[in-house]
Formats: sequence, C-alpha cells, structure tokens
Amino acid sequence: MSKEENQNLKSSSSKLTVIDKIQKCQSEITGYRMKCDKEINDIEEKYMQSVRPHIKNRNLLILNVPQFWSTVLFNHPLLQSIFEPGEKDVIKYMASLDIEEDHKNPEMFKIHFLFGPNPYFENRVLVKTFTEEGSTSSTIKWKNEKNKFPKVSEHELWEHDELSMELKGFFRWFVDNREQFCDPIADLIRCQVWYDPLEYYYLDIDKEKSI
Amino acid sequence: MSKEENQNLKSSSSKLTVIDKIQKCQSEITGYRMKCDKEINDIEEKYMQSVRPHIKNRNLLILNVPQFWSTVLFNHPLLQSIFEPGEKDVIKYMASLDIEEDHKNPEMFKIHFLFGPNPYFENRVLVKTFTEEGSTSSTIKWKNEKNKFPKVSEHELWEHDELSMELKGFFRWFVDNREQFCDPIADLIRCQVWYDPLEYYYLDIDKEKSI
Repeated sequence: MSKEENQNLKSSSSKLTVIDKIQKCQSEITGYRMKCDKEINDIEEKYMQSVRPHIKNRNLLILNVPQFWSTVLFNHPLLQSIFEPGEKDVIKYMASLDIEEDHKNPEMFKIHFLFGPNPYFENRVLVKTFTEEGSTSSTIKWKNEKNKFPKVSEHELWEHDELSMELKGFFRWFVDNREQFCDPIADLIRCQVWYDPLEYYYLDIDKEKSI
Repeated sequence: MSKEENQNLKSSSSKLTVIDKIQKCQSEITGYRMKCDKEINDIEEKYMQSVRPHIKNRNLLILNVPQFWSTVLFNHPLLQSIFEPGEKDVIKYMASLDIEEDHKNPEMFKIHFLFGPNPYFENRVLVKTFTEEGSTSSTIKWKNEKNKFPKVSEHELWEHDELSMELKGFFRWFVDNREQFCDPIADLIRCQVWYDPLEYYYLDIDKEKSI
C-alpha cells in the first residue's frame, strides 16, 4: 500500500468514525422528535374530538346566513385580491366550507367547498385534497364554456405561468396542483378563514356601520 | 314603521341571533384551540430542552467533516436545483448551519449560516430571520462586486421577477424578503436538512458507491 493510499484510508476511516458519532447524536434527536410528534398528535386528536361537534354546529348555523362564506372570503384582507373578474358571482353560491383534517398527519387535509344549485357548474361539492405527495382537485363540470374559470385551458396556464400568489384567480388556484411544498392560499383558508370565520365576516358589518 | 322596514328589522335581528349563536360556538372552538396550543407548546419546549444538547453536540462533530453542510445542500433532491452557476464555490465555505426556534411561536425562527474565512464576503455569519410579519436577512459584505450574488441589484430583481421556487439562486433567496406567507426553501432547510442532515449527506456516499 502506498503512503498516499494509507493516508486516504486513515482519513476515510476517521471520517467514518465522526459520522458514526454524528449518527448516534442523530438517533437521539430522532427518538425525541418521534416521541414529541406522538404526544402532539395525541393532544390534537383529543382536542379535535371536543372541537368537532362545535364546528359541526357552527357549520349548520352558518347555513342560515346567506352568503356567509363568500362574505368571509371577499372580506379577508389577503384572499380578497385573488378573485378574477366574474369569479365573485360564482363564489356567492358557496353554501358551506369544511376542512377534513388527519391529525395523524398534519400535512394531509381536504378542503370541501359545498355549493347550492347555480348556473355555472353541476358539482355540488368541490374538494381540494392535500397529501405529502402534493394536491389533487375535483374536476369542475362547467355548464357553459363561456362562463367557466380559469378562462384559458390548464395547458396554456401552466405553459406561460409562474407560480404566484398575486392575481391567481380562485379557480386557477383550485385546479393548480403543481406546487408540492406549500400552498399559501390553502394555508390562509385553513388557518385563518376556517379557524375563525366571524373575524372576517364582522369586517363587513363594520364596513356597513361606517357607511 | 313601514311593512318593509319592519321586515328588514326582523330579518336583521334574526340574522344577529344566528350570528350570536355562531359566536358562542366559535368561543368554544377558540377556547379548545388555545388550550391545545398551550399543551403543544409545553411539550415542544420540554422536548427541545432534551434535544438541544444533542443538536449542539452534532453541530460540533460536523465541524470535523469538511464541506458537510454544502454536501448536504448539494445532495438534497429539491435544494440542489436552486444554486446559480458559481454559487456552489461560495457555499463550500459554509462551516455550520443552525436554527434557533421559538417554541412559544412556531412561525418565528432564525437560520444561521456560519462561514469560514473566504474570498467572497466579510461576514462570518449570515442570518435569515422569520417572524409573523415576514423575514429579514443580514446584509452581505461582498469583497468584490464581480463575485457577488445575486448578480443583479435587488431593485432589478424585484422589478422583473415573479416569486418562484425554480432557479431562484441561494443568495437571491437569502436576500429576498417579500414573501410573507410561506417560504418553501426555508421550510426545506428547517424541516428536512436541519432535521436529519445525514440522510442527505449519505446520498453522496451512495453515489460514490454506485460509481
């Protein structure tokens, strides 16, 4: 064995020893994190069981307030800018909004948009599903090509389009399943709109008061 | 009072009654969520105290492995594509990577990139700080305008640029503090690279084996 080969072997073996030590540290860290995640999941499951009946009740009560969810979405300081011209007329038919969460896996959730009968599409419910692998969405059965959103085909959209929050369009966001890492619009709907819709509904009442 | 005014008042008062009921449900939901968040924060704090010494130890050991963090970043299947030509030569001087978390507020964290002496910039540490209001980053003191990144000025960058994951450039991402909602690159560094760097370091070893 040459001197150089010997040195290479020595350096490679000392590198492995350090990496073995790093691996040992990492096992401790991973162990703690797994226990931590397990405890957190248990807590979230416990609270979700207590919260769920109140959310169900809240959703039923909201059905009695015309255009509640569309008002909430149109009042939200960030979401209000995503709607393309004409989309608001469609969203007004949204009767209910619900989120189905999987507390075993916080990255998995489904947003259910329930619609009343409307002149735009056949579906009664549009679902956008998020998993660790990415998102999928219901196929929208538009009644009339002229009144559909987004106005261009998916193919044209993806060809010329950069992923962007600004002026995305609600239905453009709904059908866009390219982003695998994070979806700011879904996050706002889940963590703000669904978490406390009245906060945004009230903005409207305040607006009316100030007129 | 006209019949119409009377009806309006009736409809407005019944609307408020429903909203009062929704408010009552919401208070229950918010109460549970606050208790849940408190319990989760306590658990995270408890585990972070146990994990922190192992992370400190891991970081010290890693200092003995040349180009550990740059290898991890260049091997990561998603992050490897963000580097602009020439940036890898700079990142090779990264000596340590650390994340400072605030378990009272999971949206607040700081990424510390520690660098060895290098021909590119004066700073020994570059910090990107994330808060609920957005992000800020250290000012990089480039030694030579010709060797700085990003190659164009921030002004030019923001004027013509859409926020995009693709081909962003490491330093372009580092100085870009426009995005307020989510930062996929920061998330990958925090939740994957920092969580278990060996997983990506080993990819390199596997690559070497297969050659």
